[in-house]
Amino acid sequence: MPASAPTHPVIPELIRLLGPDAVLTDPQELRVYECDGFPIAKGLPTAVIFPRDTVQVAQAVGIITRHNLQVIPRGSGTGLAGGAVAYGSGVIVCTSRMTRIESIDLDNRVAVVQAGVLNTALSDAILHSGLRFSPDPSSQRASTIGGNAATNAGGINTLKHGVTTNHVLGVEFVTAQGEIVQTRATGLYDGVGPDLPALLCGSEGILGILTRIWCRLVPIPRHFRTMYAVFNDSQAACRSVADVIAAGLVPASMEMMDGQMVRVVEEAFHYGFPTDAQALLLIEIDGVERTLDGQLQQVVSICKHNGACDIQHCSDPTRRAELWSARKRAFGAIGRLARSYCTQDACLPRSALAKAIKEITEIGRRFGITLSNVFHAGDGNVHPILLFDEDNPDEVQNTLRCSEEILEYCITLGGTITGEHGVGVEKLHLMPKLFSPQTLRTFTDIKTALDPGHHINDGKLIPSDTLHIELMQPATPRSPGGAMVIG
Amino acid sequence: MPASAPTHPVIPELIRLLGPDAVLTDPQELRVYECDGFPIAKGLPTAVIFPRDTVQVAQAVGIITRHNLQVIPRGSGTGLAGGAVAYGSGVIVCTSRMTRIESIDLDNRVAVVQAGVLNTALSDAILHSGLRFSPDPSSQRASTIGGNAATNAGGINTLKHGVTTNHVLGVEFVTAQGEIVQTRATGLYDGVGPDLPALLCGSEGILGILTRIWCRLVPIPRHFRTMYAVFNDSQAACRSVADVIAAGLVPASMEMMDGQMVRVVEEAFHYGFPTDAQALLLIEIDGVERTLDGQLQQVVSICKHNGACDIQHCSDPTRRAELWSARKRAFGAIGRLARSYCTQDACLPRSALAKAIKEITEIGRRFGITLSNVFHAGDGNVHPILLFDEDNPDEVQNTLRCSEEILEYCITLGGTITGEHGVGVEKLHLMPKLFSPQTLRTFTDIKTALDPGHHINDGKLIPSDTLHIELMQPATPRSPGGAMVIG
Repeated sequence: MPASAPTHPVIPELIRLLGPDAVLTDPQELRVYECDGFPIAKGLPTAVIFPRDTVQVAQAVGIITRHNLQVIPRGSGTGLAGGAVAYGSGVIVCTSRMTRIESIDLDNRVAVVQAGVLNTALSDAILHSGLRFSPDPSSQRASTIGGNAATNAGGINTLKHGVTTNHVLGVEFVTAQGEIVQTRATGLYDGVGPDLPALLCGSEGILGILTRIWCRLVPIPRHFRTMYAVFNDSQAACRSVADVIAAGLVPASMEMMDGQMVRVVEEAFHYGFPTDAQALLLIEIDGVERTLDGQLQQVVSICKHNGACDIQHCSDPTRRAELWSARKRAFGAIGRLARSYCTQDACLPRSALAKAIKEITEIGRRFGITLSNVFHAGDGNVHPILLFDEDNPDEVQNTLRCSEEILEYCITLGGTITGEHGVGVEKLHLMPKLFSPQTLRTFTDIKTALDPGHHINDGKLIPSDTLHIELMQPATPRSPGGAMVIG
Repeated sequence: MPASAPTHPVIPELIRLLGPDAVLTDPQELRVYECDGFPIAKGLPTAVIFPRDTVQVAQAVGIITRHNLQVIPRGSGTGLAGGAVAYGSGVIVCTSRMTRIESIDLDNRVAVVQAGVLNTALSDAILHSGLRFSPDPSSQRASTIGGNAATNAGGINTLKHGVTTNHVLGVEFVTAQGEIVQTRATGLYDGVGPDLPALLCGSEGILGILTRIWCRLVPIPRHFRTMYAVFNDSQAACRSVADVIAAGLVPASMEMMDGQMVRVVEEAFHYGFPTDAQALLLIEIDGVERTLDGQLQQVVSICKHNGACDIQHCSDPTRRAELWSARKRAFGAIGRLARSYCTQDACLPRSALAKAIKEITEIGRRFGITLSNVFHAGDGNVHPILLFDEDNPDEVQNTLRCSEEILEYCITLGGTITGEHGVGVEKLHLMPKLFSPQTLRTFTDIKTALDPGHHINDGKLIPSDTLHIELMQPATPRSPGGAMVIG
């Protein structure tokens, strides 16, 4: 332990349990953990620990809660709402060394993995079998299956193949009391008792620390048609999406990029997108080979009917991989435009998509914020990306206010405030606009049932008394190691 | 109110709230509600009420719990595990008058219904649209959508299309405190906060009374191939099921009937099944027309390879409807063989199916119990049906012991004790064999969070202190209006 390490009494105990190489206390190293993918709210943990198995997690939780510190579960920290950050104090329990794929049962299509296994690591390990773990968030090369489950991550193929909760057959988790809870799963459906896997999926780490996941494995689609359609008008692109669904087609993916995003992605990755596009739809159909041309033709007709000015197919596997890689790295490319960006996330009834995209652009304009869109159009899951400079407090505040207005607008359309990124700390203040006091109280009751002392990730996802993060105040200047804005 | 009605003080209050025609108190009429589809454990309620909307449910719950009586939610009472029965006392809140389809949004494919809407009533109401509510339990003409959700009902097309929880986008429910809790849903995925819809689905009425469901609507498959394959050996039929899945095919349904069930169904419905079959597989493939013949051919080859002695296709829609009707009414047909039957329900890893069917038959033989099988083979969800006479206490006890041995055997194979029928009171004693004390405690903690006084359907699904039903004791003689066996 470096001489300068903090001397909180929890630390020697954790070192005794886990060994010195599994306990991070150096303030400089802790900076890596001061935020996740939501750059606006930061805070240093007391320590970060790296247990290797469930029992270590359970024992560590016992130690941390005895010291009355918060336990903050974290996978790879790719979350986008501040859910995996210790604001002020607390010990981050990082699953990044829990990377064992424990069993693979190809006959029954179930893999059991430790929570820290990377999303693509599982699919890579079973590639030979023709099966895969289906959830494919853009972060999938970096994010853990435990994190995918905790945020109920979506992805590009969600439209046809479902979100993470649809692919989690069972979970093991450690409660705030350090108890290990496990449900069993054998296959397609056989949940017994209150559906703990579904409850833990999307609970953003407030109910317990996921330590082990029973993953459903599904056949890798072998045949595809991949295309993109260029539009001079984002409204027309949105209408095409609604029309494809109305025609009874279920593409694996229908993704949309607005003109600015197309240009940024093209500059970064040189895929060959037309840089004068106002909107681009990326569509992939998978399934039985001999049906695909017919389906593709239908999609093409619909896009043309809605005024698509250019439609390109790509049947070459390499080109196809490049196309989706370009899409998945769009968030990275946007970094070329501004120091910081905030990826918003809302869900809308699909029929409201065209109207909403127009109004969201208008809201951005009113706030003077550069705003790009790249999103899961088929799911009605929009991702306006707001560009700003996180070191400029006025821009931070403006970004937060603009985000709020966008999300409130989505609520008025019958939408919700997150599709896949979660609530974290970012959207806490909007929860009362989406849910009645009775429903919020029920959320809290469930939290309290599993974590009576509110020791695990308290103050995320549902409002709590123990953590107040007032994002929308004049920001205080950043001081090294201090949380940026904590009320 | 008839002069002979019980005079529990809750009754006049409920009549004041709901009107006399919505409160059943006549002991003879209450007999209709003394059990559900599990005939072994019976008990009369104090009263049965028929609220018409959520507010009435909430107000009634307030009255019932003030009198310290149990609140027992009930749809159509088609459950198979005693979950909708008041043992000794308690007021049954029956949703059978809550039958309003409140809205249908075809564009976004969501229907909002009151919990008492019958499963088929919703699909019938939208038939013109080409959409349907997918869950299709055999009881679907009688069972309510609220009941389907509360038990997380499966069905014949579950293999491809999923169980009820996969088709519930949002729920409204009344808590034991009489509060109305609601989640919103707009489409494919946008759950925010702990996943209450998933938690309520399959919770068997212990967490609250479902009053309103947001139902996902999906396109009705338009093209089919339906076939049955006859086997001289149930092992070969089971192997065919595993081989079809291993080949990467996902039929809508793969159902199996053993020889005895084939004969009973044939005698009842005269479909034309060969009465010398040892096992029959009913298989349906749905999807894009031009792929179906190819898939069918693959399934046929697999069945032949496993020794199917006769394979019949049926492309005629009327014959197809008759076939599935015969399958769905198999449970009814079995009534010809014995006064009573107990439909067991367990899930198994699909790879263990052949072995398990053999052993289950052997267990039945050891107990001297006539046992038939009709089940969702593709899902690994077995339904051995045990025949007995409910008025013969020795037979009741023998049936219970045989059931227990079957379920314990399924647990040893890595299976679970219910696939779709639930735990109710029937399988309470097996819960500790499936779950650790920590997991069971977590279930109870969640129950207590939503129902601190344990007023709603307590003692079902998870063991509780307030209700002890000792099914496996020498049965006491039945007395009119008394519970058969209550400890």
